[in-house]
Amino acid sequence: MYIVKIGGGAGITEQAFANFASDLAAIDEQFVLVHGANAEFSALSTALGQPPRMITSEKGRVSRYTDCATMETMLMAYCGKVNKLLVARLQHAGVNAVGLSGIDGKLATGKRKPVIRAIEDGKAKVLRDDHAGTLKHVDTTLIALLLGAGYVPVLTPPALDIEEGTPINVDGDRLALELAIGLSAKGLLFFSDTPGLLRDRDDESTLIEHIDASEPRSALGAAQGRMKVKVETAVKAIERGVGQVVFADGRLPQPISRALAGNGTIISAAQAAPVG
Amino acid sequence: MYIVKIGGGAGITEQAFANFASDLAAIDEQFVLVHGANAEFSALSTALGQPPRMITSEKGRVSRYTDCATMETMLMAYCGKVNKLLVARLQHAGVNAVGLSGIDGKLATGKRKPVIRAIEDGKAKVLRDDHAGTLKHVDTTLIALLLGAGYVPVLTPPALDIEEGTPINVDGDRLALELAIGLSAKGLLFFSDTPGLLRDRDDESTLIEHIDASEPRSALGAAQGRMKVKVETAVKAIERGVGQVVFADGRLPQPISRALAGNGTIISAAQAAPVG
Repeated sequence: MYIVKIGGGAGITEQAFANFASDLAAIDEQFVLVHGANAEFSALSTALGQPPRMITSEKGRVSRYTDCATMETMLMAYCGKVNKLLVARLQHAGVNAVGLSGIDGKLATGKRKPVIRAIEDGKAKVLRDDHAGTLKHVDTTLIALLLGAGYVPVLTPPALDIEEGTPINVDGDRLALELAIGLSAKGLLFFSDTPGLLRDRDDESTLIEHIDASEPRSALGAAQGRMKVKVETAVKAIERGVGQVVFADGRLPQPISRALAGNGTIISAAQAAPVG
Repeated sequence: MYIVKIGGGAGITEQAFANFASDLAAIDEQFVLVHGANAEFSALSTALGQPPRMITSEKGRVSRYTDCATMETMLMAYCGKVNKLLVARLQHAGVNAVGLSGIDGKLATGKRKPVIRAIEDGKAKVLRDDHAGTLKHVDTTLIALLLGAGYVPVLTPPALDIEEGTPINVDGDRLALELAIGLSAKGLLFFSDTPGLLRDRDDESTLIEHIDASEPRSALGAAQGRMKVKVETAVKAIERGVGQVVFADGRLPQPISRALAGNGTIISAAQAAPVG
């Protein structure tokens, strides 16, 4: 069983969804899909006159402030438009997909931070309406039920703070990671609008083909920012029992077959080898 | 097992969702929920600068024209915001809800009308981008799987045209009806922002307390427009094996308990009697 995370960047188009759908239909394997919708989220926020408010936490982490209206916009982009259009595309290709958020069947739960201290536009502020949160628990019961009955679950953030009864904004990569661990996946495949992890993010020819998860420091040495987080996520997955992690191109035909054949950045504890 | 349809009118507020959630948590019975989101859909359309385009079919039926952008707005309002906020509210009350659209697990399928001839602003037009459709088939496999495992399915339009891979706009009441028939429900409860079916729609004191489904003509004689469709739906449900149909108030505390105790308009083949 593989976890397929499809990124929400602008390069992942409806055509890309169709490519994933026909590829999945042709591969005899169990899959759980997780997707983002960041580009759609930003576009919808702009259309609704809600420009992103970026805040910096006390630890220096920059994130988007998710007030109540912004969370509703997130629900609309992630769980409404993108989730359902992807599921419709999969169904059309013969894949019996079921779209779910982390809220459904309380499959991804966590805790909202009721009070956060942050810096916005250079000023220290105390914010009480943020719907950011930390993913604490992934319950695979519902996913296992659906997989056992032959369905392909298609998951998306947000997660749920049950105590408050409110959705919380959690990271889609983290959700995919926890699912891969919880389901002991053979592999965790991250697709985005690049060929994989790049030494120089502006040069697609600088693809890193393999990272040894037992020696991540050499790779991490070169990695910065978002890429460093990705490598750390991958290493954590391998340490907790996931077979392999691949970062691959989500813009090409047969994206999953290509990744399983070894195209992209493969992170594994053993030597570089095709996943499939 | 009861089908509970919660209308999408402006009178069904977040407080109403909380009332449904706590009531459901207290009743020892299986439920499938179906909800609308019409008020949210209209508000979102307006916010996005998409005013409703009303068209009149050749048969004289007035409906909202659902082009591609409008369908995306529908997905966002129905499957995104309203479905997930209702599921979050249910989870908070201890009800293990799972939100689904008719697209998921291809549970509600039909056919899009690729070409429609209609009148808009007095002019005859041929429209090719309409996402309206007719609900042809409700597949209860996924619902039965979830109910059997103790989940409460929470369903919403749209449905799916599998051949085209596109969502289609179908009526939520019709979806609830087909589910009630397919699952041989004991009862089908319709909640909206009125006390039930009214003789005079502007006077809540004119509640019709009982309609005999074996003698619907006398009731239908007085019913007009939307109400006539509702009575016809109810009579069809009874004829096809559903125990009872109740039209009840969705704005009050304990709405389901109240409906099961006989408050609202009860439509049954036998004499008027509480459903529960």
